[in-house]
Amino acid sequence: MAAELTAHELIEKHRPTLDQALEAIRTRAYWSPHPEHPKAYGENGSLDAAAGKAAFDALPGSRLDLGQPGTDDWVGGEVSPYGIELDVSYPHADVDVLIPAMRAGQRAWRDAGPEVRAVVCLEILKRISDRTHEFAHAVMHTSGQAFMMAFQAGGPHAQDRGLEAVAYAYAEQVRTPGTAEWTKPQGKRDPLALTKRFTSVPRGIGLVIGCNTFPTWNGYPGLFASLATGNAVLVKPHPRAVLPLALTVQVARDVLAAAGFDPNLVALTAERPGEGVAKTLATRPEIRIIDYTGSTSFGDWLEANARQAQVYTEKAGVNTVLVHSTDDYKGMLSNLAFSLSLYSGQMCTTPQNLLVPRDGITTDQGPKTFDEFTADLARAVDGLLGDDARANALLGAIVNPDVKARLEAAAGLGEVALASREITNPEFPDAVVRTPVIVKLDGAKPDDEAAYMSECFGPVSFAVAVDSVTDAVELLRRTVREKGAMTVGAYTTDTETERAVEDVCLEEAAQLSLNLTGGVYVNQTAAFSDFHGSGGNPAANAALTDGAFVANRFRTVEVRREA
Amino acid sequence: MAAELTAHELIEKHRPTLDQALEAIRTRAYWSPHPEHPKAYGENGSLDAAAGKAAFDALPGSRLDLGQPGTDDWVGGEVSPYGIELDVSYPHADVDVLIPAMRAGQRAWRDAGPEVRAVVCLEILKRISDRTHEFAHAVMHTSGQAFMMAFQAGGPHAQDRGLEAVAYAYAEQVRTPGTAEWTKPQGKRDPLALTKRFTSVPRGIGLVIGCNTFPTWNGYPGLFASLATGNAVLVKPHPRAVLPLALTVQVARDVLAAAGFDPNLVALTAERPGEGVAKTLATRPEIRIIDYTGSTSFGDWLEANARQAQVYTEKAGVNTVLVHSTDDYKGMLSNLAFSLSLYSGQMCTTPQNLLVPRDGITTDQGPKTFDEFTADLARAVDGLLGDDARANALLGAIVNPDVKARLEAAAGLGEVALASREITNPEFPDAVVRTPVIVKLDGAKPDDEAAYMSECFGPVSFAVAVDSVTDAVELLRRTVREKGAMTVGAYTTDTETERAVEDVCLEEAAQLSLNLTGGVYVNQTAAFSDFHGSGGNPAANAALTDGAFVANRFRTVEVRREA
Repeated sequence: MAAELTAHELIEKHRPTLDQALEAIRTRAYWSPHPEHPKAYGENGSLDAAAGKAAFDALPGSRLDLGQPGTDDWVGGEVSPYGIELDVSYPHADVDVLIPAMRAGQRAWRDAGPEVRAVVCLEILKRISDRTHEFAHAVMHTSGQAFMMAFQAGGPHAQDRGLEAVAYAYAEQVRTPGTAEWTKPQGKRDPLALTKRFTSVPRGIGLVIGCNTFPTWNGYPGLFASLATGNAVLVKPHPRAVLPLALTVQVARDVLAAAGFDPNLVALTAERPGEGVAKTLATRPEIRIIDYTGSTSFGDWLEANARQAQVYTEKAGVNTVLVHSTDDYKGMLSNLAFSLSLYSGQMCTTPQNLLVPRDGITTDQGPKTFDEFTADLARAVDGLLGDDARANALLGAIVNPDVKARLEAAAGLGEVALASREITNPEFPDAVVRTPVIVKLDGAKPDDEAAYMSECFGPVSFAVAVDSVTDAVELLRRTVREKGAMTVGAYTTDTETERAVEDVCLEEAAQLSLNLTGGVYVNQTAAFSDFHGSGGNPAANAALTDGAFVANRFRTVEVRREA
Repeated sequence: MAAELTAHELIEKHRPTLDQALEAIRTRAYWSPHPEHPKAYGENGSLDAAAGKAAFDALPGSRLDLGQPGTDDWVGGEVSPYGIELDVSYPHADVDVLIPAMRAGQRAWRDAGPEVRAVVCLEILKRISDRTHEFAHAVMHTSGQAFMMAFQAGGPHAQDRGLEAVAYAYAEQVRTPGTAEWTKPQGKRDPLALTKRFTSVPRGIGLVIGCNTFPTWNGYPGLFASLATGNAVLVKPHPRAVLPLALTVQVARDVLAAAGFDPNLVALTAERPGEGVAKTLATRPEIRIIDYTGSTSFGDWLEANARQAQVYTEKAGVNTVLVHSTDDYKGMLSNLAFSLSLYSGQMCTTPQNLLVPRDGITTDQGPKTFDEFTADLARAVDGLLGDDARANALLGAIVNPDVKARLEAAAGLGEVALASREITNPEFPDAVVRTPVIVKLDGAKPDDEAAYMSECFGPVSFAVAVDSVTDAVELLRRTVREKGAMTVGAYTTDTETERAVEDVCLEEAAQLSLNLTGGVYVNQTAAFSDFHGSGGNPAANAALTDGAFVANRFRTVEVRREA
C-alpha cells in the first residue's frame, strides 16, 4: 500500500521548520512556529474557536477507539475540575498483546532514519496544532487550567516543547555521519582503509507517564524525544487527565499510518484510578525509557527500580524567591502576585517560599519592614484577583481534593497574611476556585521549618522571615540541595547579594530569574530558550530539553568493512 | 601568583588541535595528533626511547609524592607481569581530608569556562605524549602488554581517546551559547525582552576506577570527560596497575598548577590489594560521576548502589565471530589468528566464540569442513607465533594467575584444536607467556553451552559447531542479548547472511566488523572514528566516546533578567 504522505513531501513541508528549530536551540533567541493567539487559528485547515469547541463538545458519550491491538476493556470516568463529566472511554490494554504489537514496526521506523522520523513527528505536531482549540478544552477540563492558559500552555507551548525535543533528537543523531571513509597511512605500505556505516538504533519502547496538571506540556518532550530517536512510545496518562494524551496518540497513529509506518509505534493504555499500572509497566524488560512527571516518591521508586530503563523524572521541589531590595517595588509586587496566582499555584515552577529579611527590605519607595512587604504583597494579589472574571481567568480550578485540603490546612501553619477566598465561576458553578493563601513563618523556628521545607503544592506560599540576607542565601542553598527546586527567583539591587544568589544557583544547579518586574514570570519558561529545571538538583534528573535528555534514548551501531 | 601558562597561550597553542579533533569526531575520518612510531619521539621536548627508558628506570625505590593533602600512608608493591618489582610507592588518601580539598578549586575551574578547560586538558595530554616512551614501560610492566603494544595502546591511542573525550565535552558545553538576548513580540505593546546567561556547572567529583589491563586507554576517556566538564577527578587505580595513572595524575597536577588552578582538582588514591576502597568511595555523596572498567559483578553493583552518581561502566561480554564464507580464506585465517593472539587475548574486544556451521564453510579455496577450518586456524596461529621473538612481541605476558588458571582449565572443556604453549621471554624469564588455546565445542550440547555462554577472559577461544547459519545468527543474538558484546565479527560472502548478522547487531546494539582480512582487527578501535562498545547491550552502559558519555557530566544553569 502506498503511503498517503511520502517522505519527500514531509521533508519538503517540514524541513524549514526543523532547521529553524535547530537554529533556535543554538542561539536560544525567541522563536515559535505555534501561534499563541486564539484568533490565529481557523485558516489553512486549522480549527477556529467555534470548530474547536464543537469538536470537544462532540466527545462526550464516545469511545476513543484507537484501533489498538490488545484492548481488553474500556475505561474512562474523567470528571473535569470544572465539574462536568467528560464521559469518554479509552482503551485499557492487555499489555502482553499490545507491547509485542508495538515492536513490529520498529525496524521500519529505525531504517527510516533521523530526518524522516523528525518530519513525521513535525507532521504529528502540525495536526495537533491545527486542533489547538479542541486540545485547549481537553486540557482545561482535565487540568483545571483556565481556558486561556490551557490554550497556550497546553497548545502552542506544549507543541513548542515537543518540537524542541525533536530538534535535539535530530541534532544528536546526525552528529555522527551515516557513513565514513577511514584511511590510515602506513608509511610505504598501502594505507589501511575501511568503510564505516553508522546507524542510530532505538533502545526499545519508551513509556510516558503523564501528569494531571500539564498532560501535554509535560508529556510531549519525552514522547517526541523517544519517538524521534526511533523508539516506540506507550503513553500511560494520569487517570484524571487522559483525554489530551489520548487525542495526541490518535493523531500520532493517524500520521504514522498515513506515512506508511505501523501506527502501533505509538499507543495508549488508560487505567482505572488506583490500578497502579505504571509500576507494572515500568519494570517490564521491553520498556527501555521512562519519562515521568509527578510525585517525588514514585519518581524515586522509578529511578531505583526501573533499572532496565533510562529514567527521566520531574519530581517535586521547593521553589524559593529571595527578596532583598528592588528599584521597582510596584513591579516586583505585581510580578510576584501574578506568579503566585497563575493556575492557583498548581505549577511545579510556582514560588513557595519568599525569604525576606526580618529587618525589612529597601525599595524605591523607601524601606519596607517584613510585615509591610507581606501586607503589600497581599494587597497586590487582592488587587490582581479583585474582579471575579479576571480571577477565574487567572486561577482556573483546583485540580483535586488534595490540593484543596492542603490549602485549607495551610492557614493553620502560621499567621495568615492573605486569606484564601472562594470565587464563583458563573459558567461552571461546581468548579472549586480559590485565591492563594500567604502565611507568615519564622525561618528560625523549627516548627515553621517543617512547613517551609516541604513542598505544599497548590495556592500556598510562605513569607519566611530570616535574620539576614546571608541567612536567606544559606537557606536558599539548603532548600535547593535538600529539596530541589525547579525555579529560584531573587530581587536585589545589591551586586554582592546578586553574586551570592548566583553562586548558590550555580553550585546547586538551579535556574535563576533575577529582578523580574514586567511580563515575564519566574514560573514560566519558553521552549528553545529556557531550560525547564536543571536536572542537577533533587527536583528533577533531567532538563527539558538538552543533549542529555536525548543522547541516551538511542545508541549508534557501527558496521565497518574493508574499503 | 601569576600563572606560568596563561589561558591565552594555551588557547593559541592548542586551539588548532581542538578544532581538528572536533572536525574528526564529525567526519569520523582517520586522524590523530599522537605519533604511533617510537622513533617519532625525541624532538621538541619529547623523550626519545633511551630517555624514556631512563626515566622509567629511575623510578624503582622512589615515592611518587604528588603533594596531595590528606595522605595518611604510602602504598605500593606492584609486581610486573614480566616478573620485576616496581618498588614505587603512592599516596594512600585520608579521603575525609582529600575530598574536601579537591572541592576548593572547583569554582575557579568552573568559571574558567569550556575552552580554557579544554586547552588545559590538551596541555596535560601533550605533556603525557612527550613522555610516551616512559609511559610505555609503565603500561608494559603493569598490564603485561608487550612493549610495542604498551607503547601504542597505552600511549598515542590512549591519548587519542582522552582528546576525543575533551572534544566531545567541549562541543557539548558550547551547544548552548554563553549568553542570549530573547525578545518576544507582544503585538502593539513593547516586546518582552530578557538577557540570559548560561553556565556549564560540574556535577561534583568524578571517580575513575582503573583497570589492570589498559590503565591509560580505559582510564583517560572518563578522566578527561569529567575534568573538561568542570568536575574534579579522583583516580583510584587497580592495585596492580597504579604507575601509569599515578604518572598521569602527576602531570595533570603540574599542568593545573602551572595554569593557575588548584592542583587538587585531580588526585590519586592508591590502595592495598583487597582493601576495596572503590566501594566506599563510590557511594560518598561528593562523588557524582563514576567511570569504571572491570568485572560485571562490580559494575552491576555500582549501577545499583552508587545512586548519587552518574555511572559509566565497561563490564564483561562474550564476543562472537560468525564464520560462514569468505573469498579470502588465507586473509581471514591470518586476521583471526592475530586477533586471538594479540596481548594473549586479554582484551575486552578479543573474539571468544567462533560460530561455524557444522557442515563447513565455503571459501575461495573450496569448501572447508568445521574440522578443516579449526585445523587451518590452529595452523595460522601456530605460524604467526612460531618464532619466539615474534610470539613474545605479540602475546606479552599473562597479567595475573587467574587468567593462567582459566587458560589451563579451558583445555578440559572440549576437544583441543590448538593447545597452548609456554614461550620463554629471554629478557624477562619470570614472565608467564602462553599461546592461545582453541577448544572445539558443540553449540547444541548443554554442557558446552555453559562454557561458551560465559566470558573466559584470556587466550581462550571456542570453535562452536552450529547446525546452520540461521542457528549461528540466533546464537549470536542470544549471546549479545544475554551476555553482551564489545565486538562482533562476521565472515560471509552471502548478502542474505550479511543482512541477517547486521540486523542482529542493529537490534541488539553491537558493533560489527565484516570480512576483515587485512591489517585492521576486530579487537581494535580507533578514536575519533570507531565507537568502543555501544552502551546498548549488557557489556557496557556507555560508548567511548559519544554525546551521552559527556552530556550528563555537567548541567547548564541559566540566569535570566530583564534586558
